[in-house]
Amino acid sequence: MKLITGLPSVFERYRSVTESELKAILADRHFPLYDMMKYHLGWIDEKGRVVNGLSGKAVRPSLCLLACEAVSGEYQRALPAAAAIELVHNFSLIHDDIQDDDRERRHRLTVWSIWGKPQAINAGTAMRILAGLALLRLKEHNIPIQKQLLVQHIIDESSLTLIEGQYLDISYESRFDIGVTDYLEMISKKTASLIATAMYVGALLGTEDETLAKSFRDIGRNLGLAFQIKDDIFGIWGDEVKTGKPLGSDVKHRKKTFPVVYALEKATVDLREELIDVYSNGGIERDGVGRVMSVLDAVGAQYRAQRMAEKYCCEAMKSIDKLNILPLAKQDLRDVAQFLAERNF
Amino acid sequence: MKLITGLPSVFERYRSVTESELKAILADRHFPLYDMMKYHLGWIDEKGRVVNGLSGKAVRPSLCLLACEAVSGEYQRALPAAAAIELVHNFSLIHDDIQDDDRERRHRLTVWSIWGKPQAINAGTAMRILAGLALLRLKEHNIPIQKQLLVQHIIDESSLTLIEGQYLDISYESRFDIGVTDYLEMISKKTASLIATAMYVGALLGTEDETLAKSFRDIGRNLGLAFQIKDDIFGIWGDEVKTGKPLGSDVKHRKKTFPVVYALEKATVDLREELIDVYSNGGIERDGVGRVMSVLDAVGAQYRAQRMAEKYCCEAMKSIDKLNILPLAKQDLRDVAQFLAERNF
Repeated sequence: MKLITGLPSVFERYRSVTESELKAILADRHFPLYDMMKYHLGWIDEKGRVVNGLSGKAVRPSLCLLACEAVSGEYQRALPAAAAIELVHNFSLIHDDIQDDDRERRHRLTVWSIWGKPQAINAGTAMRILAGLALLRLKEHNIPIQKQLLVQHIIDESSLTLIEGQYLDISYESRFDIGVTDYLEMISKKTASLIATAMYVGALLGTEDETLAKSFRDIGRNLGLAFQIKDDIFGIWGDEVKTGKPLGSDVKHRKKTFPVVYALEKATVDLREELIDVYSNGGIERDGVGRVMSVLDAVGAQYRAQRMAEKYCCEAMKSIDKLNILPLAKQDLRDVAQFLAERNF
Repeated sequence: MKLITGLPSVFERYRSVTESELKAILADRHFPLYDMMKYHLGWIDEKGRVVNGLSGKAVRPSLCLLACEAVSGEYQRALPAAAAIELVHNFSLIHDDIQDDDRERRHRLTVWSIWGKPQAINAGTAMRILAGLALLRLKEHNIPIQKQLLVQHIIDESSLTLIEGQYLDISYESRFDIGVTDYLEMISKKTASLIATAMYVGALLGTEDETLAKSFRDIGRNLGLAFQIKDDIFGIWGDEVKTGKPLGSDVKHRKKTFPVVYALEKATVDLREELIDVYSNGGIERDGVGRVMSVLDAVGAQYRAQRMAEKYCCEAMKSIDKLNILPLAKQDLRDVAQFLAERNF
């Protein structure tokens, strides 16, 4: 596994144990569908040859393990839940690539562009089912059965919420009456819910204190909102080498990300019409992307997005300060919040 | 709900309680995705207006409830599992229609042909997740939590198996080296596994006798194989009004169903080449369908398929006779097995 420089150190540690847990979950599954999953997770290439160093940031499982360790002093018992949540996230990426017609993700061909859309639909759905089965491993950590069922329930509900967010994201593509409120509803569902769930479930597995666990959920929600808005910034102004997305990528896909929605709300009538004109016409070419980016610059959309992300990180930071946990764990959480606010990849 | 004439009477009764259970599961969900599910289940039209009488045969939930009633004298406690299994089956139909590019099912537009493939992918996956949540209702029937988790586990594994079968079905489309053994592997996974699971889980919820429950699983497996082979017969020689599929429908889709696979194995070299020629060339027109059907007639594929379906029903019937259950329940099971062997829709 390749080190992703710039990640908080606690993330690097959690990434490697999460990967081991995921490998254990997939170890006894022998069928082409599982090879497609292993390919997507960056463990093998399309011929089945082992490759190294292609895993993602594993933000969600790391936050899950961090929450568990923060309340209980150890993260191990949350590993099955962390892995399940990473599988839920990755099922949604496999389907998202099909839905958006994206041929590449992180400089690699997407699952559907190798195996075709019908089989990629199968691999994605199977991965979501595997997430549920991964939770059976909680038993080995002596988690009471009632809590196992609760965790399953929370992750299932959060998966439905994620799909509702995905539904909104797709339905916004053909609409121009979207405001910041609609946008926030969409990312709350599509991104923040699963990140909140990661921290909630991690904490629940480490403590009986339901109120404390809910504080982690709220922190996760704010971090999730910040995380998505940062992602939106990279989707337009990101460094292609670091993010794997070319400049203006989200604009080319006519995504209604925060900067665009903000511009739709705040731009002058002329600029708004310019934006709608480019977004309405089939095939945004280089010129169209440039025109959209000029409108975004004119309303200061990047600055505004960055402030918005910082606002949510700041909310999270305030809640972190109030947590009744060990100082070292608190510092880890602060580092993560700061990283999510300041990251440039 | 419209009566489907010809169903064993016990099925008619179970269909209506299953539909009530499904409606209760969906009652508190308000979001367009759930309307798509309700449309697929035949409760509303594409504008959201209530319609009546379009539900399917509900074979799987009926077998689940029948198994529970046969071992315990009552079916109510298996209702959440019956509904969950019907949701698993229907998620697979929504995705199957996308994968096969089918615009119609049972004389109605498919979900994707109304809402588009990206949103239909979402609706299908969400329906599979909802199946898991439906099982939480087992608690209200005082099912011990250990058994709830076991049922969840069995249904998740069976869902994975179903997707593996779907994977095989799609991968066979471009292959001609498929024999009857490959075909049986595919339908064991795609169809028989979930039907076996329906009966297994139904029995498990009614008895502590694991051996008895496993007998029901084996009966379900044989009935499932028979059911699929009968479906294959209707897919080629079926009555369009009854099945909703035009004559030769599966041939048009180049499906490797039993009659075709049998012909690939048994036809003379010339006829085999004729078959491969039609199946290889893009766009099977009316003439191509006719040529394939002549080959199938020449090898007696319909007769052979009917005998094969009867063989599996007969296996099931033998196991039913050996069951240590009440005579009335045994007669219901026999009626169902006979119906599945003889049905013409």
